[in-house]
Amino acid sequence: MTDPARIDPPESESGPLSERRLHRHFGEVGRTLPPEVLLGPGDDMAMVEHRGPVLVAADQVVLGRHVRLDESPRAIGRKAVLRNLSDVAAMAARPFAMVATATLGPNCDHEWARALHEGLNETGLEWGTPLVGGDLATHSIPEGPTVVSVTILARPVLPEDRVVTRTGAQAGDLLVTTGRLGGSLDPDGGGRHLDFTPRIEEAIELAEVLGPDLVSMMDLSDGLAQDSGRLALAAGAVAHLDASAIPTSPGCDWRRAVADGEDYELLLACRIPPPSEVLGTPVTVIGRLEEPDGDPAGAVIVVEGRKRHRIEHLGWEHRTAE
Amino acid sequence: MTDPARIDPPESESGPLSERRLHRHFGEVGRTLPPEVLLGPGDDMAMVEHRGPVLVAADQVVLGRHVRLDESPRAIGRKAVLRNLSDVAAMAARPFAMVATATLGPNCDHEWARALHEGLNETGLEWGTPLVGGDLATHSIPEGPTVVSVTILARPVLPEDRVVTRTGAQAGDLLVTTGRLGGSLDPDGGGRHLDFTPRIEEAIELAEVLGPDLVSMMDLSDGLAQDSGRLALAAGAVAHLDASAIPTSPGCDWRRAVADGEDYELLLACRIPPPSEVLGTPVTVIGRLEEPDGDPAGAVIVVEGRKRHRIEHLGWEHRTAE
Repeated sequence: MTDPARIDPPESESGPLSERRLHRHFGEVGRTLPPEVLLGPGDDMAMVEHRGPVLVAADQVVLGRHVRLDESPRAIGRKAVLRNLSDVAAMAARPFAMVATATLGPNCDHEWARALHEGLNETGLEWGTPLVGGDLATHSIPEGPTVVSVTILARPVLPEDRVVTRTGAQAGDLLVTTGRLGGSLDPDGGGRHLDFTPRIEEAIELAEVLGPDLVSMMDLSDGLAQDSGRLALAAGAVAHLDASAIPTSPGCDWRRAVADGEDYELLLACRIPPPSEVLGTPVTVIGRLEEPDGDPAGAVIVVEGRKRHRIEHLGWEHRTAE
Repeated sequence: MTDPARIDPPESESGPLSERRLHRHFGEVGRTLPPEVLLGPGDDMAMVEHRGPVLVAADQVVLGRHVRLDESPRAIGRKAVLRNLSDVAAMAARPFAMVATATLGPNCDHEWARALHEGLNETGLEWGTPLVGGDLATHSIPEGPTVVSVTILARPVLPEDRVVTRTGAQAGDLLVTTGRLGGSLDPDGGGRHLDFTPRIEEAIELAEVLGPDLVSMMDLSDGLAQDSGRLALAAGAVAHLDASAIPTSPGCDWRRAVADGEDYELLLACRIPPPSEVLGTPVTVIGRLEEPDGDPAGAVIVVEGRKRHRIEHLGWEHRTAE
């Protein structure tokens, strides 16, 4: 039952994956951490200076499911962090630290793991979110998946520690989105699903401008159809969207804008009209929450001229980027 | 590229795994959360009341690697939490929240996922560590592994927010362990690696009793041989262990006690003798850190009567519980 190993095996920089070597490399990043990190990687836990409520979320990237199997490990690490940062944006909060775990398949060598780590670490530092710990494991199942899980910590920044949740909207509220939707996974979409700008600053700015009239917010990960349905359901309302108002990415019509997913833009419900842009990012009123009237709460209706599309088949749970 | 799915698919309680259904189930747990959880599962992030530095660690359980493939999902969830709690103990800190992600293979059905969740959730609540969020994904690779990742948040409880790190020891310090070592993975070992008592209360008690004379602490996960080597390396010292002093589990000799791993007991370095037990758990002096003298820093020497064993081949990186 025991798998004997030397305590200090000689190791080269290339070749097969060693968990010990990976851990050592994870430990090295401590040198680049900001002073708020009281204790970095390498101990049983990391410790971060903090005074107030803690926001926490975890998300994962499964190779072959959320990213292509042949995607670069650095891009995968980057995406794993950006997805979590988008969740922070959705609360109008600011991130301050993260940890990551990864289970790597036998196709991943040491260079792959190092590049993954760099993608995680660099993206975190870029956004003031140091990678303060984690764990790496390997499995030996040839076709088995590689999984990267990131947990992010954030702090409220609005007065009185307010955060903006998914709940709180009601019929009559305007539905608003940032940026342009659709085509994130297209080969000619510029790899937007891999390298987007989490709307952290935009969310805080909108929350400050709209104040208590910003009643609800979430990020668009599964597509406007599904996500606006979720927001409507939480409000006990129906989402009515104006097809001609939905801001679309180049080459996308409204159908793709509501169905494609992985936009990582913000979806807001607010009681007063928002500014038309924040920090250079367009902000667009796309519809309104209405009382259920024949349609069940959580339904999504797209109004296209005189046509009325009730969306049931455009949503999706998760779509593989392959 | 799009995988169409109804927004509200009809779902039964058995049958194949649905990510949406899993998420809904994860959301339901919010009803049992303590009041410090300001915002539970179901939003983009959870929020927990907190005033002070945050400790954070992440760890993962890979099926077929850290637990047997046929282990019960509830036991797997429990172990995933207990491993993290053992890291909290190693800092002499107290946990306050956790999040979990899981990537489930096609062998896992809804009941499996529900039992995993129960194992995570119940164990967390038992230890004052509510599960406040997470993410579930699936993969369809028949032999591909199932992976459970847990991130735990903790707070310092010692005066002046002190925590006890792995570093800080030096030659001359006593080496001390709690409990009894070895045999955790044995079929007749009572499943100890799956259901142990994280030494959280013992660690805090020891830190209070020993004060600044408790200079270093870690938990024993990879076995006394490897872990005492790590502590010695951090101290620039050599670990000398007395074979006859090492507290062994029934049926284990000292060799197994240093090599088996998954003990989840504490390893301490201290400057004064500790009490012989805390809270009913034995506390045993097993050796001392010594200046390197021919042996490199980080080496581990077991003294057995007149024999002197330098451990190089008893350690291991990770051992499969199969």
